[in-house]
Amino acid sequence: MRTRIIFSGSGGQGVVTASIILAEAAVLHEGLNAVQAQSYGPEARGGATRSDVIISDTDIHFPKVNHPNMLVCLTQEAYNTFSGLIRPGGLLLIDRHYVKPEKKVDARQVELDIYKTIMKEIGKPIVFNICMLGAFITLTPLVKPESIIKVLAKQIPSDFMAMNEQALQIGQRMAEAYK
Amino acid sequence: MRTRIIFSGSGGQGVVTASIILAEAAVLHEGLNAVQAQSYGPEARGGATRSDVIISDTDIHFPKVNHPNMLVCLTQEAYNTFSGLIRPGGLLLIDRHYVKPEKKVDARQVELDIYKTIMKEIGKPIVFNICMLGAFITLTPLVKPESIIKVLAKQIPSDFMAMNEQALQIGQRMAEAYK
Repeated sequence: MRTRIIFSGSGGQGVVTASIILAEAAVLHEGLNAVQAQSYGPEARGGATRSDVIISDTDIHFPKVNHPNMLVCLTQEAYNTFSGLIRPGGLLLIDRHYVKPEKKVDARQVELDIYKTIMKEIGKPIVFNICMLGAFITLTPLVKPESIIKVLAKQIPSDFMAMNEQALQIGQRMAEAYK
Repeated sequence: MRTRIIFSGSGGQGVVTASIILAEAAVLHEGLNAVQAQSYGPEARGGATRSDVIISDTDIHFPKVNHPNMLVCLTQEAYNTFSGLIRPGGLLLIDRHYVKPEKKVDARQVELDIYKTIMKEIGKPIVFNICMLGAFITLTPLVKPESIIKVLAKQIPSDFMAMNEQALQIGQRMAEAYK
């Protein structure tokens, strides 16, 4: 069992934070191994952030994802740059507010209104990434929601937990129909 | 020019955050390339956090550090686990409050009182990692202090900037004698 994931978007969307939370949840609460990596090159200067996560039940020696099973694209630039990398049969998650899919990919493409829903139901863009993570773990049940919550509880002030749990649940609910 | 760095410590010390700030400063403000990666395995469950950064003026294809030129150890466990990896002639930075060096390494070992100084001069452990970064960039001038400050200014609330700048400067001052 080895899942290769790329989360991509722009700097302020919390893509790197979300990927670290996922990796820590897998390791600390699911007994799995994980690596997380980000490369910064010319794309980073242009604004596209990319964070790679590999989750596996065996040792992982190479922490970079060349061809992901799971790809999340949260900006048009990220979609244009990375959508060609996905493995045939993989799963591509995009946010409809930021991405207009322009080409066919050889993968299942799930388009959600994460940003719009978060802004309507919570009104704070800061939990956009947690909502995305809720959708992600519903589409690919690598990590239980309780494991994500345990990691969050150790990292964020307790005043913010209710909002984060709500964002995670909204994401889970949105992805339920696409499981 | 290629510098391979491992920052190691425990979860709450901000090791991963510091390494991401360094990587972003190198890319966004120094025109370099960088990768940052962390592996979570059995050590992570035991509490040792490790974050690898490679900074280079050419492309970087493999984002994991096997043998660092620069190693930072902020807990005894991190020191015991990783100090053997350093390249001959490398530089090992430790915090005296957390680490009692137990063995000889084939590297220059710089022992600073980062934690104690931060607690005495600022009183907030949250900027411990930024102070460490101030010492780090003084020992190895890959990235200018102004570049770190530019990255911080985009990431943290403006109310906290003065404290972070002060922490960075304290770190620079402490490492000055070991340049």
